[in-house]
Amino acid sequence: MNSEQLFRQIQQKKSYLCVGLDTDKNRIPKHLLSEDDPVFSFNKAIIDSTAAFAVAFKPNTAFYESGGSRGWQSLERTVAYLREKYPDIFIILDAKRGDIGNTSAAYARAFFESMKADAVTVAPYMGADSVKPFLGFEEKWVILLALTSNTGSADFQYFADPQGQLLHHAVIRKACTWASPDQLMFVVGATHPQELAEIRKIVPDYFLLVPGVGAQGGDLDAVSRVGLNQRAGLLVNSSRAIIYASDGSDFDKAAAHEASLVQRQMETQLELAGLI
Amino acid sequence: MNSEQLFRQIQQKKSYLCVGLDTDKNRIPKHLLSEDDPVFSFNKAIIDSTAAFAVAFKPNTAFYESGGSRGWQSLERTVAYLREKYPDIFIILDAKRGDIGNTSAAYARAFFESMKADAVTVAPYMGADSVKPFLGFEEKWVILLALTSNTGSADFQYFADPQGQLLHHAVIRKACTWASPDQLMFVVGATHPQELAEIRKIVPDYFLLVPGVGAQGGDLDAVSRVGLNQRAGLLVNSSRAIIYASDGSDFDKAAAHEASLVQRQMETQLELAGLI
Repeated sequence: MNSEQLFRQIQQKKSYLCVGLDTDKNRIPKHLLSEDDPVFSFNKAIIDSTAAFAVAFKPNTAFYESGGSRGWQSLERTVAYLREKYPDIFIILDAKRGDIGNTSAAYARAFFESMKADAVTVAPYMGADSVKPFLGFEEKWVILLALTSNTGSADFQYFADPQGQLLHHAVIRKACTWASPDQLMFVVGATHPQELAEIRKIVPDYFLLVPGVGAQGGDLDAVSRVGLNQRAGLLVNSSRAIIYASDGSDFDKAAAHEASLVQRQMETQLELAGLI
Repeated sequence: MNSEQLFRQIQQKKSYLCVGLDTDKNRIPKHLLSEDDPVFSFNKAIIDSTAAFAVAFKPNTAFYESGGSRGWQSLERTVAYLREKYPDIFIILDAKRGDIGNTSAAYARAFFESMKADAVTVAPYMGADSVKPFLGFEEKWVILLALTSNTGSADFQYFADPQGQLLHHAVIRKACTWASPDQLMFVVGATHPQELAEIRKIVPDYFLLVPGVGAQGGDLDAVSRVGLNQRAGLLVNSSRAIIYASDGSDFDKAAAHEASLVQRQMETQLELAGLI
């Protein structure tokens, strides 16, 4: 999927919601535990109930790897199901990878060729040759960590050089020399709306993936006001607030309700920005 | 395993070699491809032939994940085999993870509890709360990326603050406030021996995991002269130069030969440092 197609999806669905599939076996409704693959059953129900309100889904690989090879199978099934039943959905594997060249290339094949995801999150610390192997695939995306939503983001991401340039700005500026707005996005946490406005000035044309709305407390309206650009340019992720909206047998309906509330808020913001 | 036990292993084996199991199905000898699990068969033979010369093994998870759930099974089998047959071997999962707290906790359970590894490599970019969930396990280790061996290490790891402090030094100094030399090591590439000497001054007591000897061209003697401390304090990794020493049916013997050459060089360095 390229950025034009992604923007069209956003206009059609009036939503830039990404649903984070951070599926923890300990938090899914008890009645699913007797199923053959409870994690996949949960994901399938969440996907079917929320796909009308979301343009993207984002499984965080950690939650699947913690279940070993069986967990990895649940992830493969989830991505295959999305790919087949919802071909227009943008699939992000939130893996936060980054390794030396030949290793990053192995990850890229795993995520883009074996699993057919659209995008993968990558950590910048190891520099150009750890990121570039992910950029050699047509209509596939790198989403590079810039300013993350967690409290630890303060530890190193604000490290400043003698000219006052912050590390996460340096990361963004350098990465823009590696790839166009059709191959590269940046992660910017919703917990930092002022900093997001600064980042939008540096990269007016790039999409930003914004986690931290919902359980982490970020403000969707504030993020949207400073983050939307002429092609929307935002994917805002919510994970726990949607997928764990209920732990009863109505979990999928509750998730749909939460997702629909976010979608309506996004519709308003898209209208205010003149994008729909 | 704690640092005292690791040092005793180093003294007994007269080696601080870590063998990197970067096992790529496309590079293993052709006659293994008819086996049920070629990657595991290859690893088992490499482990059996080199374990006498090495104190640690380090599977890089990327190479297994690129094979999907089957690849993940090969990794689980490899770690289980090491754990059972060579209980004194230090097992490092080279995963370079780093995510928000609840996600890092899921990774930590996967690597330390399900797989029973001794150590996992972690990326520092996301800060304290992405690293600390890995530190809550007795006699388990975090190995934090500081200065990596690849050319891209120049992109951000040398970012300097107004006082001239380099980012990788800031990472090391801050991480030392999170964990003792019995829980934390740092990755420092063998391709930077002068910088390794600087880092050794900052952390005289911490172990350093040093990749980049062998195929990447780092100099073992240079690294050892500046890196060895009073408890050795080094694990030097070689992957491709050992495991792909031959692509014929003698691959395990060739690997043993390469590993034995490195071990002898290490024995000399340990003697010169008065550690054996």
